Amino acid sequence: MKRTSQINDLREIIAMERSRGQKIAFVATMGYLHRGHLSLIERAKQTGAFVVLSIFVNPLQFGPKEDFSRYPNDLEQDASLVKEAGVDLLFHPTVEEMYPRPIVTFIEVGQLGSVLCGATRPGHFRGMATVVSKLFHIVQPDITFFGQKDYQQFLIIQRMVSDLSLPIEVCPVSIAREEDGLALSSRNVFLTSEQRQEAKVLSKSLNEAETSIRGGERSARKLEDQLRARITLECHGVVDYVEIRDAEDLSDVTIIDRPVLIALAVKFGSTRLIDNKVVEVEPHV
Amino acid sequence: MKRTSQINDLREIIAMERSRGQKIAFVATMGYLHRGHLSLIERAKQTGAFVVLSIFVNPLQFGPKEDFSRYPNDLEQDASLVKEAGVDLLFHPTVEEMYPRPIVTFIEVGQLGSVLCGATRPGHFRGMATVVSKLFHIVQPDITFFGQKDYQQFLIIQRMVSDLSLPIEVCPVSIAREEDGLALSSRNVFLTSEQRQEAKVLSKSLNEAETSIRGGERSARKLEDQLRARITLECHGVVDYVEIRDAEDLSDVTIIDRPVLIALAVKFGSTRLIDNKVVEVEPHV
Repeated sequence: MKRTSQINDLREIIAMERSRGQKIAFVATMGYLHRGHLSLIERAKQTGAFVVLSIFVNPLQFGPKEDFSRYPNDLEQDASLVKEAGVDLLFHPTVEEMYPRPIVTFIEVGQLGSVLCGATRPGHFRGMATVVSKLFHIVQPDITFFGQKDYQQFLIIQRMVSDLSLPIEVCPVSIAREEDGLALSSRNVFLTSEQRQEAKVLSKSLNEAETSIRGGERSARKLEDQLRARITLECHGVVDYVEIRDAEDLSDVTIIDRPVLIALAVKFGSTRLIDNKVVEVEPHV
Repeated sequence: MKRTSQINDLREIIAMERSRGQKIAFVATMGYLHRGHLSLIERAKQTGAFVVLSIFVNPLQFGPKEDFSRYPNDLEQDASLVKEAGVDLLFHPTVEEMYPRPIVTFIEVGQLGSVLCGATRPGHFRGMATVVSKLFHIVQPDITFFGQKDYQQFLIIQRMVSDLSLPIEVCPVSIAREEDGLALSSRNVFLTSEQRQEAKVLSKSLNEAETSIRGGERSARKLEDQLRARITLECHGVVDYVEIRDAEDLSDVTIIDRPVLIALAVKFGSTRLIDNKVVEVEPHV
């Protein structure tokens, strides 16, 4: 496995691979890798392309009171994991390499970025979309993989690529979970053992909501209220949001009569966890 | 010369050229081409690359009260001009081809886009940067040429390319002028003969301002006032702005002690003309 922290080095390596007729597959991460990331790598490997993985904790997408400075990292452990997983090139730039001077150009994503996680994390999706577009310009992949845990992020990237005609195929990969259902996250490491136990209520309640919809429940507000009540009663976490929205454009849904996203964010102490589930519902005719 | 209005066609043609080892040079225009555009093409030809020219009047960069619907166009005349000039591929997409659905992703350029022309044309540079990034993603040029008449546009594109790590060299080309100094513009066609006569005061007053600076004048406000007074007295045009700003980042300048941009916009009836001059001044030590 090759590795570099330099944009120019990376461009040379990729130009070389391209000149040999290789396609490029790309996985963007913030490091502290877990099985969820490995499933992205696995999908990238299956394409037969040259697989590039980036590790970059992007300060632009963290608010001033968020956990940028304590975001977990272990570059050497990550490097050995991704080498094992068959990544061909690891790109781990410094903040100075990515932003040698303050940037003034940003990708704005409108309404898609202002709901759900965007409502309590102003600027988050702007920073995320900006760095992802920059990584896309650096790596110039043919195909890229993003996990569905960050469903809103996936939708925004997919829309950005379509709106701005980036020549990249954006593929979703389903959420990797612990045995008890907890969605894998680099931030899970911050949970106390009690919080870790309680956190399984997130996926459990999402599953129950799906069961309710399959059973005929069509009121989005009623389901949201039930979910919020259950989580509030069964754990010490504080609900940031529980929302049911259109799965394609995140618009408001009152009657569940189309594919919906059930999404939630809950804070356990200072650790904020997110989870979601897409439920396909046939339009009522 | 090849020509197409289809993104997919264009991508195939360019992939073919790339596979032959050709570099790609790109000139983005809104059509109704004049000698200024031809000088961009000439520079592109000099690189030896495969030269792509786009003609697209981008609705995103026009305000609701601006001249989108009456922007001049003559595709067949343009096509014969650019064929003559040696363009290899003419790309003239429709609005539907570029925006098959409303886009929600925009390139924001901050302060650089809110001064000068941005002050009276809110959203203009956002729309411009967005479509240029889209054209860059479609054409994927190695090198691109922009005229200095739209100096602010040039700076914004240069900064966007740098901030977002687009792998493109952005080259400025100096302003093409009529014999009496009037900067070439597709909009000049709207001037009455009286307005056309009067419009030469723009370049004349810019030249005089430069002479004043060379003669030792260092007060930006005083020069701006003189320019505004002269233009107001000598023509029927209405000054939109006359400003002296830092030539690199468009920040405010009070004392002229570094390279400055002298920029102006004047409305003759409903026709808005712009012109500018960069004056290199050694920092005062």
